[in-house]
Amino acid sequence: MAANKVVLLDCHFSMFGMRARIALAEKGVDYEYREQNLFDKSALLLEMNPVHKKIPVLVHNGKPVCESMNIVEYIDEVWKNNNSSSLLPSDPYQRSQARFWADFVDQKVADAGKRMWLKKGEEQEAAKKELLDALKLLEGELGNKRYFGGDSFGFADVALVPFYTWFYAYENLGNFSIEEHCPKLIEWGKRCVQKESVSKSLSDPHKTYEFIVGLRKKFGIE
Amino acid sequence: MAANKVVLLDCHFSMFGMRARIALAEKGVDYEYREQNLFDKSALLLEMNPVHKKIPVLVHNGKPVCESMNIVEYIDEVWKNNNSSSLLPSDPYQRSQARFWADFVDQKVADAGKRMWLKKGEEQEAAKKELLDALKLLEGELGNKRYFGGDSFGFADVALVPFYTWFYAYENLGNFSIEEHCPKLIEWGKRCVQKESVSKSLSDPHKTYEFIVGLRKKFGIE
Repeated sequence: MAANKVVLLDCHFSMFGMRARIALAEKGVDYEYREQNLFDKSALLLEMNPVHKKIPVLVHNGKPVCESMNIVEYIDEVWKNNNSSSLLPSDPYQRSQARFWADFVDQKVADAGKRMWLKKGEEQEAAKKELLDALKLLEGELGNKRYFGGDSFGFADVALVPFYTWFYAYENLGNFSIEEHCPKLIEWGKRCVQKESVSKSLSDPHKTYEFIVGLRKKFGIE
Repeated sequence: MAANKVVLLDCHFSMFGMRARIALAEKGVDYEYREQNLFDKSALLLEMNPVHKKIPVLVHNGKPVCESMNIVEYIDEVWKNNNSSSLLPSDPYQRSQARFWADFVDQKVADAGKRMWLKKGEEQEAAKKELLDALKLLEGELGNKRYFGGDSFGFADVALVPFYTWFYAYENLGNFSIEEHCPKLIEWGKRCVQKESVSKSLSDPHKTYEFIVGLRKKFGIE
C-alpha cells in the first residue's frame, strides 16, 4: 500500500465531493478535509487543478487527482486491499456496465439537476422533465436489485447517491414528488444511507435546500 | 480469454467509432464491422443502445458495451494478454492521469469540435477559440513526450487521435492553422498515424471534410 498523506479539497454541499468522501470512507482511509471557497479560490486549489479549477481534488502524497469518478476509481485501485470489497467488480463486462451508468449520471442527472436550481420558469420545467426522464431510466435499470451492480454497494451507487440527498431540494424547487415516479429509487436511497460510509459523507437534505435557496438569492434567480 | 463473436456498430467518419476501431486493432481482435445509418437507425442499434441510441456499440457475444472510452477500456481489459501492451498503465496514478486527459478530450475538444461544423458566424468563432484553448492545454501536457502517457501509445492518445484526422476540416471551416498554435500536437499526430492500428482506423482527412461540407448543406447551415 502507498505511503499516505491524503488531503481532500472539497465543498460540503457538492455531490461530486460527496462521491470522493464515500469512497474514502468505504476504504477506511484517514484524510485531511479542506473546505474550499469557490467564490475566492485558494492558491492550493488553482495549483492542484489548473485545468478545471474545480473541487473535489484528492491530493495523495502531494500529487493531485481530479474529477470525481476518476478520484473514486483511483481510491478503489490504491486501497484495494482495505476493509471493504471493491467498488468496481472484477468482471470486465460488469465493470463496463458500472462505468456506463456512472457516466449516465454525469451526462443526464448532473446537468438537469444543475439547471433545476440555476434556472426558473420554462427552463426549470424543461430541466425537471429531463431529470425525471433520467431518474426513470435509472429506476428501470435498478429494478428489483439491491444496488445497481447487484448485491453489493458499488461504483454506480457512489455516482448517484449524492444526488439522492439533493432530491428534497429538487422537489421543493420544482413542486413535484420523485417518489411518485421512482419508488424503487427512493427505497434504494434509504438503503444506501443505512451504510455509515454514505450517511457520514452526505449533506443533510434540508440544509442542502437552504443552501440552494441562499445561492439562488445570491445569483438573483428569484 | 473470452469466446469471441465481436461486432462493432459504427459510422465511418465518427471519431468515437475510430477510438473503438483503434483499440480493436491494437489488440488484434477480429470483428465484424456494421456501418450504421444515423438518419434511419437500425432495430439492432436501438436494441443494443436503448439509452443513448448512439454508435459506437461493441457487441461481444451478444452483449452490448456503449460509450467509446468505456468500450476502449473494456477491450483493454478483456484482451489484456493479446499482442500489444495495455492502453492503460498499471500504476494507479498514471491510470488516473490517462483517464483525466481522455475525459478532458470528451469535455472540451469534442464539444467545441462539434460546434465548429454545426455552427457558423459568431458561434463558430467562439467554438474555434474554445477548441484552440483546449488543444493548447493538450500541447502543454504533451510537452516533449512521445505520447501522452510517455513512451507508449496509450489511452489518452486513443481518445484524441481521431480528432487529429478532423483537424483539416476544422481548419478549412474556421480558416485557421492548428499547427501554428500547436506544433508538437501535429508532430504527435504524425507519429500516431505511423502506427498501422491508427492509420487503418482513421477516416481520410479530405474525405472527412467533404462529408462535413455535405452534412452542413443537408442541415442548411450554409
